[in-house]
Amino acid sequence: MATITSHFANVKSTVHFPCISNQRRSHLPPLKPTTVRMSMTQQTRNSQPYGASVQADIEAHIKQFLTIKEPLAVFEPMHHLVFNAPKTTVPALCLAACELVGGQRHRAISAASALLLMEAATYTHEHLPLTDRPKPVVKNHVFGPNVELLTVDGIVPFGFELLARSDDGENSERILRVMVEISRAVGSGGVVDAQYRKTMDTRSDGEEVCHVEEIMRMVEKYEGELHSCAAVCGGVLGGGSEDEIERLRKIGFCFGMIQGMAKRGFNEGNEVNEARNLALQELKFFKDKELDAIKILLNI
Amino acid sequence: MATITSHFANVKSTVHFPCISNQRRSHLPPLKPTTVRMSMTQQTRNSQPYGASVQADIEAHIKQFLTIKEPLAVFEPMHHLVFNAPKTTVPALCLAACELVGGQRHRAISAASALLLMEAATYTHEHLPLTDRPKPVVKNHVFGPNVELLTVDGIVPFGFELLARSDDGENSERILRVMVEISRAVGSGGVVDAQYRKTMDTRSDGEEVCHVEEIMRMVEKYEGELHSCAAVCGGVLGGGSEDEIERLRKIGFCFGMIQGMAKRGFNEGNEVNEARNLALQELKFFKDKELDAIKILLNI
Repeated sequence: MATITSHFANVKSTVHFPCISNQRRSHLPPLKPTTVRMSMTQQTRNSQPYGASVQADIEAHIKQFLTIKEPLAVFEPMHHLVFNAPKTTVPALCLAACELVGGQRHRAISAASALLLMEAATYTHEHLPLTDRPKPVVKNHVFGPNVELLTVDGIVPFGFELLARSDDGENSERILRVMVEISRAVGSGGVVDAQYRKTMDTRSDGEEVCHVEEIMRMVEKYEGELHSCAAVCGGVLGGGSEDEIERLRKIGFCFGMIQGMAKRGFNEGNEVNEARNLALQELKFFKDKELDAIKILLNI
Repeated sequence: MATITSHFANVKSTVHFPCISNQRRSHLPPLKPTTVRMSMTQQTRNSQPYGASVQADIEAHIKQFLTIKEPLAVFEPMHHLVFNAPKTTVPALCLAACELVGGQRHRAISAASALLLMEAATYTHEHLPLTDRPKPVVKNHVFGPNVELLTVDGIVPFGFELLARSDDGENSERILRVMVEISRAVGSGGVVDAQYRKTMDTRSDGEEVCHVEEIMRMVEKYEGELHSCAAVCGGVLGGGSEDEIERLRKIGFCFGMIQGMAKRGFNEGNEVNEARNLALQELKFFKDKELDAIKILLNI
């Protein structure tokens, strides 16, 4: 089996963009001024888990724009599926990375929200009862498959819209860069690739065939790429340098690997330790900066 | 029944952005230089239908970036589903609108491509055999439902990626504006809304219940919004003025209504004539510009 180290050697830095200029430019109309008070203060950080704090901020941000309105047949399922999908550390990592490079949390809140929306969409599709899916569906469906399918078709563009509208006239190039990162991570080069692999490894009776190498490849493409993307997006929107962003890519990937392995029963072992050590090593680069938040979040 | 005129009175101008500045800014790395020679010359316009000419340009543009590569399990179905979905006039209208406001076709080629990709995704999902879909599926499926579902999950972000990467450092704000337009048109406020309406009007035996007003509302949200969006995107990327862009929004909407009504058997009648007349009236504004292309395309 390829070691986790070799996986890291393959971490790609595929999207290189120069730092954007600080020239004042004409403004796109921003989203309505946010009424969410960001909860990231030292006080709240001490009084509630960091992950819960950022998750609450992200959900509050989405709720401003995803209200239950007419047509209810469209927006009720959308609201339900977005806020009832399992939580992951991906959106939180985006905000933590933004803060790690010295950015204010609100700079990355739309990207973190878009990531949460994409994950809710992915989760819903993964549990959609299709005529050729072998596994019994264990999730309780509040809505029928047809409505769930349509709802996801609304959630994904809504995520991109939220991100596109977060431009304040000074960060449009950063937002476009983040869009490329998110598109790749959730698309055919990331999550969709992992899902294909899972499909191919599933027997007709629904049992998954477990080849460790293939599982690791799936974890790379799924949790690895998603966390890597989240960290990069936070770094870009927080104004990090290219060096910082590439370190964040590696840290995110390591953390995603740890998460993905744990999800599949690999809680300990050389690979997990190697990933943790590599993440810690890259984090040392940020020694002069605020590290608490991301360490708490990553639990390392 | 509400007349088509009243539908037009409701055409929204929801996204207003100021013209972007012409200041030179730092560049995002553009997509690889295109090798597609745009076929829009007087010669080709005379020798082949305008619609076919722009369609060929759009498909050639997509093919540059959507190659059949590893993993084949991902990219073969993606290629197949994108290029075998029924053609519509939506992507072509985007390029025609760009040229109508004096823009060069290549400025809007990525937006037109993204629109084609979104339409292919929508078509595939509409024909996905779900466990609660009553209608027998008439489309021949080359791939299983699971693969088709996953493939669309790859096609949609690929469309946004293509658009995001088309930034040449001078048009990022325009691209973001276009993203908002496309997200809305294909999402919950547009195509998805129309699809919900269709679902609600479909009886358990699969028969659609036809209320003319409801059909008109579906046409507005589906073909109306999509064509309106396409025309606006072309106008924005071609550098049109706000006035030109809003006129294009109406022209696109009228044309979409004509197309959508024809698709549902309303080939003639007051509504069709009114839509045609309104489109022609708005087109008069562009009297000093090149009108042939868009008139040929719109067949009016």
